[in-house]
Amino acid sequence: MELTRRNFKECLNTVYSAIEEADFLAIDGEFSGISDGPNVSALTNGLDTPEERYTKLKKHSMDFLLFQFGVCTFKYDQTKSKYIIKPFNFYIFPKPFNRTSPDKKFICQSSSIDFLASQGFDFNKVFCNGIPYLNQEEEAQLREQTEERRNQHANGVGTPSYISPSSSKGPAHVPDEHKDFINKVIERVEALFGSSEKSLDLEPCTGFQRKLIYQTLNWKFPKGLHVETIETQKKERFIQVSKVDEEERKKREQQKLEREQEELNDAVGFSRVIHAISQSGKLVVGHNMLLDVMHTIHQFYCPLPEELQEFKEVTMCVFPRLLDTKLMASTQPFKELISNTSLAELEKQLKEKPFKPPQVETAEGFPSYDAAKEQLHEAGYDAYITGLCFISMTNYLGSFLTPPKAYISARSKLIEPFFNKLFLMRIIDIPYLNITGPDLQPKRDNVLYVTFPKEWKTSDLYQLFSAFGNIQVSWIDDTSAFVSLSQTDQVQIAMNTSRYAESYRIQTYAEYVQSKQDKDKEKEKGAQTAKPWGEDGWVKSPYTTSSSFGYLRSLRKRSISPVQGEQEIHQIRSQIRADEDAEMTENAEGTLAWERATATKKGPKKKKKKSEGAESTTTTLFEVPEVW
Amino acid sequence: MELTRRNFKECLNTVYSAIEEADFLAIDGEFSGISDGPNVSALTNGLDTPEERYTKLKKHSMDFLLFQFGVCTFKYDQTKSKYIIKPFNFYIFPKPFNRTSPDKKFICQSSSIDFLASQGFDFNKVFCNGIPYLNQEEEAQLREQTEERRNQHANGVGTPSYISPSSSKGPAHVPDEHKDFINKVIERVEALFGSSEKSLDLEPCTGFQRKLIYQTLNWKFPKGLHVETIETQKKERFIQVSKVDEEERKKREQQKLEREQEELNDAVGFSRVIHAISQSGKLVVGHNMLLDVMHTIHQFYCPLPEELQEFKEVTMCVFPRLLDTKLMASTQPFKELISNTSLAELEKQLKEKPFKPPQVETAEGFPSYDAAKEQLHEAGYDAYITGLCFISMTNYLGSFLTPPKAYISARSKLIEPFFNKLFLMRIIDIPYLNITGPDLQPKRDNVLYVTFPKEWKTSDLYQLFSAFGNIQVSWIDDTSAFVSLSQTDQVQIAMNTSRYAESYRIQTYAEYVQSKQDKDKEKEKGAQTAKPWGEDGWVKSPYTTSSSFGYLRSLRKRSISPVQGEQEIHQIRSQIRADEDAEMTENAEGTLAWERATATKKGPKKKKKKSEGAESTTTTLFEVPEVW
Repeated sequence: MELTRRNFKECLNTVYSAIEEADFLAIDGEFSGISDGPNVSALTNGLDTPEERYTKLKKHSMDFLLFQFGVCTFKYDQTKSKYIIKPFNFYIFPKPFNRTSPDKKFICQSSSIDFLASQGFDFNKVFCNGIPYLNQEEEAQLREQTEERRNQHANGVGTPSYISPSSSKGPAHVPDEHKDFINKVIERVEALFGSSEKSLDLEPCTGFQRKLIYQTLNWKFPKGLHVETIETQKKERFIQVSKVDEEERKKREQQKLEREQEELNDAVGFSRVIHAISQSGKLVVGHNMLLDVMHTIHQFYCPLPEELQEFKEVTMCVFPRLLDTKLMASTQPFKELISNTSLAELEKQLKEKPFKPPQVETAEGFPSYDAAKEQLHEAGYDAYITGLCFISMTNYLGSFLTPPKAYISARSKLIEPFFNKLFLMRIIDIPYLNITGPDLQPKRDNVLYVTFPKEWKTSDLYQLFSAFGNIQVSWIDDTSAFVSLSQTDQVQIAMNTSRYAESYRIQTYAEYVQSKQDKDKEKEKGAQTAKPWGEDGWVKSPYTTSSSFGYLRSLRKRSISPVQGEQEIHQIRSQIRADEDAEMTENAEGTLAWERATATKKGPKKKKKKSEGAESTTTTLFEVPEVW
Repeated sequence: MELTRRNFKECLNTVYSAIEEADFLAIDGEFSGISDGPNVSALTNGLDTPEERYTKLKKHSMDFLLFQFGVCTFKYDQTKSKYIIKPFNFYIFPKPFNRTSPDKKFICQSSSIDFLASQGFDFNKVFCNGIPYLNQEEEAQLREQTEERRNQHANGVGTPSYISPSSSKGPAHVPDEHKDFINKVIERVEALFGSSEKSLDLEPCTGFQRKLIYQTLNWKFPKGLHVETIETQKKERFIQVSKVDEEERKKREQQKLEREQEELNDAVGFSRVIHAISQSGKLVVGHNMLLDVMHTIHQFYCPLPEELQEFKEVTMCVFPRLLDTKLMASTQPFKELISNTSLAELEKQLKEKPFKPPQVETAEGFPSYDAAKEQLHEAGYDAYITGLCFISMTNYLGSFLTPPKAYISARSKLIEPFFNKLFLMRIIDIPYLNITGPDLQPKRDNVLYVTFPKEWKTSDLYQLFSAFGNIQVSWIDDTSAFVSLSQTDQVQIAMNTSRYAESYRIQTYAEYVQSKQDKDKEKEKGAQTAKPWGEDGWVKSPYTTSSSFGYLRSLRKRSISPVQGEQEIHQIRSQIRADEDAEMTENAEGTLAWERATATKKGPKKKKKKSEGAESTTTTLFEVPEVW
């Protein structure tokens, strides 16, 4: 169902009840751009920390507009053994509420716009008929203003269009050149009193002329008239003069106030849908959804907080339960079965064995998507496809149970390990952002920080480190990069040989972090000491119990070991590029990255006993819950 | 005629010849926004210097996109005694040329977009089919790149899609998971050699897979094949393999180069139209055209220079002859006859007496604008209307000649005083930016610079200066404003009474300028000394001969005298607001301003003798030129 300003109000209850009855929702957003930085490698370095990545996305992505929002609700029908879906595709635009409301500016990125255009995106629906919205503060301000005006009104204080020192003193001073004009208006109003007509529309005129009319009519006809400025669709304003008795006048004023109240609700607009999703507490599924979540909060709730930790807290308030299908597909047992996790490819692969295409049916009264005619990058369709992927993968998990189950509910404990973990694009060794806890912090003791002349290219770095086997380069800027060596014990050798180099400089990752922290300390004086690294390379933290992705522990060591050959680097680079083709529309060269989480080769079929104590605070995958 | 990417190339010669044959051109631009500052009063203060105004517009307006450009050419037909017009309406969008070309970002302002939407603007035409463009530097870079590639090619250096250290060593290393895929491709290519088919389209695949295909086919079939990646409309890329002999292969390579050359011209796109206008040297007419000129240069030539003087020089290179109809309408003899100089109102007034509606006819093959159905804010229509206004006003000047003339050519000396002077919106005492000479520099010795607590409103300032008669307030920011007194001799009194004030502070305008210059000096160390003021209040400059608007001299004194009452201030404010309605789409409260150039009441019919020497370097208005 397509929703614009034209039909939003009448469809809102349909949206509300779809959310209310759903087992889970899938969402997707389309933006006017991805990155306003010079290139995407500035936005995503393969060795970003989660904090760095958040800061970059906040800085370089939030000035774009989320202008299409897809919601697809999924409700399981036991009798039919299939999901009933209700897809919604909202067009969104910050139409200014009135002449004094905030005039929002947003950036468009040509490549993103061009990409959407090539996919048949309808920009007129956005810009001409997009649903407005307000964030929480704007809504509060507007409600306050309206309340104030209402109180003033109740106290008999007028709300003239113009407050002028002279307006109360007597008749309006009409400049000579406007006298004819005003006299004609007076004549027409006098004629109105003598006629059977109830009201009179004056011709559009300038704001100054309207002011003169208001003043003159107020002075000449203190009773019996209601004078109002009306704006046409074409933004022309004209004055309507109506004959009214006192009762009628009051009724009209009352109607005007009610209209204002309704206009206010209209102004909150699409934000009401997000509030409903938030309040429902339903599982919200997305594909590579970090940017969607950030934009949603930024646009419909509040400007994003400075600190990642605060962002996580806000996110949990807005979306208490999230699941990212790209992360799910990149994790065992799916990782080995799925070669390309871009949404379109994922959906194709999940129709094939060993997966089963999900059984869904579009609810009555909703236009169903034509599966043959792909509508990728329409937010409603992408949300729908995302939901399908989630169902296929979830049901696949059921095949590992004894006895196997064909349908796994969105409330099953089987999927809990994936809750509230958002896929991190192109970070080598941190697969996800953990919204409900501390993030993984790999040791990176095989990583060097290298600075060099700005003429250097990747090949220069390959040459420099040619003695150390395969390396991996993550560009930071023109004159620096991280270089990951295949073996940690080579780090010291590299450091030693670089001692007398003049054209370049090498630091260990630890030194780099330290000097960065020192700089930050100098800046802030509120210093943070580096957290100690545990034996296994993860920072020990009081909160870090067994990772809820228990198997990631054993994977991590491989995940920060190097790839076996350049081909493989190219392969990954190309896969990433293919991902970008699907997920992002950008031109810049992606940074290198290799597999985030290569799986343990053990089949996942062995049941694990529920582990005890600190190790069991979160559910591990494939533990069979007591209640299904 | 509507021009998009679809028909641009085939219509370009029509555009060129229309420009070539024209007597004059009118232009107009539509932008994605006006000001990215917090409000418009930050953009336009009534006492800005031309340098300040230029700097503000450059800073706050150039990140918007000029996305519709109207050109209307006017050619006078002697036999028909009317102008033959050719209107063009170009949709413009910086579609990235290829994956490595600059990915331009631009800002959209909701109110502007909403305003255009309400006028029926077609955003899909812009974003889906807009004509691309390059500025001069981008064009040069792209030509260089193409040239380089061509040279490499001529020297037999290949241009592989991927440069990989291993690609020359031997057969591609195909990772296990891709072996099946690649083997199937080899089988299909072998089958191609055995079949009568000439070519083979492979399925779309990832960039990495394409690389493997290139490498494998190059190695296995070094001759007889042409392999090329093709991108579909939907941005999917696939490989096309063709059987070719050596001659055919070379022909194809040659074709590819030619295609590249043509694509490059396509990429320069709309800039070619501006180059043609520029090279034609024709008179270019616009309405309130400063922003149009700035955007045009910024988008199609080069980033705007830092300094106003440089901007003037660049402007003269790009548009050697400009005329602003808003300035013309705001100047005698039109000023007294025209109450509202917004384009739509101006056009209406110029159809009435004493003016004559211009005689025009749309050229054959061009769709004519329906005068009844106004299409204001479509750039092509606005350009057309601007041209009409110019003709009406120009012909009106002919009525002052003896004997009167009904038709005045665009080459007539009568209009020379208006050349290269661009209307300055809402500056109290400087009506125009003088592109070909130094700007007017009013003394402003009745102006006070006042700082105060941020709670203050205009009414507080009125109260503060209530003893001094009428004042005029030009807000600078929350805590400062210029206050113009009606009489210069009151300045000292105001200064004296403020001596012991604690909540506010007053400086004279001269003191303000001085302290600002001192600050700038500190910043730059390259100090500029204040220019001396002449007796009549204009800075004496070696370049300032008689102002080409000779009559402005005598006007200036009135122009900085105060208005007679608040009504009048309101009137002007409203007129300004009405102007804004038409010219700008913004919400913020405009700053106060009064008449910029109130006219000498002397009729303009008296002929003046051509003055001699330094006084006569420019033509004064209504001087009768020797040749018509």
